[in-house]
Amino acid sequence: MIWKQSSIWPSGLSLVALIASSACASRPRSEVPAPTPPAALVLEEQGSFAVGGTVVTSPGTFNPYEPSSDGATLHGDHAYVSYQVPVDARALPLVFLHGAGQFSKSWETTPDGREGFQTIFLRRRFPVYLLDQPRRGNAGRSTVPVNVSATPDDQVWYGMFRFGVWPDFFPGVQFSRDPEALNQFFRSMTPNTGPFDAEVVSDAVSALFAKIGPGVLVTHSQGGGPGWLTAMKTSNVHALVSYEPGSGFVFPTGEVPAPMPSLTGPLEGVGVPLERFMRLTKIPIVVYFGDNIPEEPSPVPGLDNWRVRIAMARLFRDAINRHGGDATVVHLPELGIRGNTHFAFSDTNNVQIADLLSRFLAEKHLDRGDRP
Amino acid sequence: MIWKQSSIWPSGLSLVALIASSACASRPRSEVPAPTPPAALVLEEQGSFAVGGTVVTSPGTFNPYEPSSDGATLHGDHAYVSYQVPVDARALPLVFLHGAGQFSKSWETTPDGREGFQTIFLRRRFPVYLLDQPRRGNAGRSTVPVNVSATPDDQVWYGMFRFGVWPDFFPGVQFSRDPEALNQFFRSMTPNTGPFDAEVVSDAVSALFAKIGPGVLVTHSQGGGPGWLTAMKTSNVHALVSYEPGSGFVFPTGEVPAPMPSLTGPLEGVGVPLERFMRLTKIPIVVYFGDNIPEEPSPVPGLDNWRVRIAMARLFRDAINRHGGDATVVHLPELGIRGNTHFAFSDTNNVQIADLLSRFLAEKHLDRGDRP
Repeated sequence: MIWKQSSIWPSGLSLVALIASSACASRPRSEVPAPTPPAALVLEEQGSFAVGGTVVTSPGTFNPYEPSSDGATLHGDHAYVSYQVPVDARALPLVFLHGAGQFSKSWETTPDGREGFQTIFLRRRFPVYLLDQPRRGNAGRSTVPVNVSATPDDQVWYGMFRFGVWPDFFPGVQFSRDPEALNQFFRSMTPNTGPFDAEVVSDAVSALFAKIGPGVLVTHSQGGGPGWLTAMKTSNVHALVSYEPGSGFVFPTGEVPAPMPSLTGPLEGVGVPLERFMRLTKIPIVVYFGDNIPEEPSPVPGLDNWRVRIAMARLFRDAINRHGGDATVVHLPELGIRGNTHFAFSDTNNVQIADLLSRFLAEKHLDRGDRP
Repeated sequence: MIWKQSSIWPSGLSLVALIASSACASRPRSEVPAPTPPAALVLEEQGSFAVGGTVVTSPGTFNPYEPSSDGATLHGDHAYVSYQVPVDARALPLVFLHGAGQFSKSWETTPDGREGFQTIFLRRRFPVYLLDQPRRGNAGRSTVPVNVSATPDDQVWYGMFRFGVWPDFFPGVQFSRDPEALNQFFRSMTPNTGPFDAEVVSDAVSALFAKIGPGVLVTHSQGGGPGWLTAMKTSNVHALVSYEPGSGFVFPTGEVPAPMPSLTGPLEGVGVPLERFMRLTKIPIVVYFGDNIPEEPSPVPGLDNWRVRIAMARLFRDAINRHGGDATVVHLPELGIRGNTHFAFSDTNNVQIADLLSRFLAEKHLDRGDRP
């Protein structure tokens, strides 16, 4: 099985679970700004830049008349960031970090051609920053070599991302049946150009927060782990929103849960000193999981995989709250929201999913004020 | 020397040269819309998608209960496209294709943090499409494997891109002396995730034009070759603008010039049937080259490299015009514009360079009308 051999899910997981905050669903809809797709999008500013990263230097002296790698440098391991600031922007930007095999596209136009969270939240007056993590997509320059294997695996991801059991879709799954949508989805994958390294990723994301100041970090899947690390490295992460984190769950040393066996391998928590862990108790954290995640072991790897990951997420939540924090796990079916894949934010009901996030941001007073 | 071993400059070049059109510089400045950086940017629409590409399938049958590459597919070799349409847009979009080692960043925020052609031309009411070519940046999914070597070579590119002779800048070069600008520039490089293939690239760019209809294709450097190929594959390319094309110059069979030796290897033209070549005579073509390109052989590889490339560009121009076409080579110093690197469109005088392009588009009636 491909994912057992890959580093897609780095070792380390563990969690503590609360019950999805019922407050999260009880806010009147009228308080949520409705998206207005046909209206013009009015931007104060947009741009892109690299942030963070390192420089490595080859031995020797560079000779411009006989150029070679002797004495040359390589600037790599940075993140690539594109950003847009709407007019009348709110104070705190949303910073989006993709998951495994993905890049900024996760948050852009959906596979079926609708607006993604990038534009939905611009319309809701948030500055939006989209990341390509180090060694991925437009942040491709890595200080560590890698072989890009070009191995066919579309159907593996189809299962892992809970579209269905190939070649069938799950009944009622929130993914378009237009074949072009699946074509677009498969083409939104892109390989690592260097080994995945959660510390390298979180260093670059931390450098972004050092540059832009306070904001809300929104992660997906494999981005969850670097997200927790980032929030422990910088106090500029004022809240964490995580869609289906799958790995890298942190726990105080001595409180790491037992590994959880699954068809896709054991899931392990990561121990960190209590002092570092306590930083996660200072900010609101919400974790969302979609539909078709079983409570009992499943013979379908893509299902059994998420059974242990939501369980670990709940232990993570419990650990944070036990130490005085404010973490919530929202299992969408518990709110009556059915059919979501691993990509709730780009599923066919993504405006409804965006409304949930807007409510969380409002409840936690993260959508206030104007940009300085 | 790194570039001799690489496929950065695929074999095949040849050209025909005219003299830079003096009309290009004689238009009154008042006809060129001035950029207004502080004003809000008002967009009708923005988004991203994959276009073109192929699907490969592994032998065997995919088993969702024991997932592997058996019977799995890989969707790859597409281009990734992000686009923005301003309100009151002109009829023809500008489609931007980067060069070797680059991605869409070439046209985005400049290394010193100013607006690039993406936003400058949005402000001038053009729909703008930015490409990542197949096997590069966000279009990373390749059907052919490759090793990403992580070889230090920043200084090699510094020389090849004519910033100076490392560690010195050329006197008067249009590049910021702020060290952060060079840091940003080096981090705007990204590796190939599969072998460079001009046919694969031009197939994807042609698929984009099939999707969006008529437009103007703007290429840089190594993108020049796929640009000529695209314009021979689709009649939707209504004009070609090429910044410092370095390779892949096409000539009618039997009219290919002799290879041009240089310190970076011989530069060769590519023969194509006259019938295909004639398609390039049906549209206006303009080619721009910057400063510090010698007429005589130079001991500096990065200079000698461009000596033969501008010479081949002039032969390319001559061949097109000999067959009734409309091609121009603009050597910027001949217009009194000094100090430009290989990246005129992001140099410190890039608004002046954008003004030249606006004039070309106006002269050729490519900036008329409204979007249907």
